Amino acid sequence: MTAPADFDVMSPACPSRVIFSRIGDRWTMFIVLALAEQTLRFTQLKERIGPVTAKVLTETLRALEGDGLVSRESFADSPPRVEYSLTPLGRSLLEPIAAMRLWAEEHVPEVLASRARAAV
Amino acid sequence: MTAPADFDVMSPACPSRVIFSRIGDRWTMFIVLALAEQTLRFTQLKERIGPVTAKVLTETLRALEGDGLVSRESFADSPPRVEYSLTPLGRSLLEPIAAMRLWAEEHVPEVLASRARAAV
Repeated sequence: MTAPADFDVMSPACPSRVIFSRIGDRWTMFIVLALAEQTLRFTQLKERIGPVTAKVLTETLRALEGDGLVSRESFADSPPRVEYSLTPLGRSLLEPIAAMRLWAEEHVPEVLASRARAAV
Repeated sequence: MTAPADFDVMSPACPSRVIFSRIGDRWTMFIVLALAEQTLRFTQLKERIGPVTAKVLTETLRALEGDGLVSRESFADSPPRVEYSLTPLGRSLLEPIAAMRLWAEEHVPEVLASRARAAV
């Protein structure tokens, strides 16, 4: 797999580096996985993701919205309703994140065995 | 892409969740990419990765060693020499991380355009 010549995450000043760090962030990855299943309201998303503070989830969602990965739609219901979903760009990130997820889920026994050896 | 039934990163108590967070960590991803190129000494690795403190790099390397992704070899030279390389398990992580890297490098223009729109 060859990277495009223009950008290189290993180059400290390259803008791809910040994007690379952002998409690898655990909350980004959990948000993308959760919203890939369905559009969710904030509280539903928080529940689906598990232990995350409202502050961190809000900040991560704002960053992802700014980066064009997540869209936020407000409805003038009473009480007001806000829904989050993946944009097409955000959806394109699902494949690499799903590959990371699969690696984590498939290699649990090997990692745990290594940790047990390291703790001896 | 279907996950194995036994483990699920979206389940808060699942051990795969910690592993998922660990492999998505930016320093883990940079270390795997750097060591995929070649075996490196600590100072070489630090230089290749760019702005990272020795403390964070040391801690991340220890964690990756404990997880069985990185191996550390000491040589009784003068001064003593320590080299880091990927284990076969660590090497298996290269493909998903390279996919994350490729996404970051390929989508720089779209993410930057979205940020510019968000800043208006």
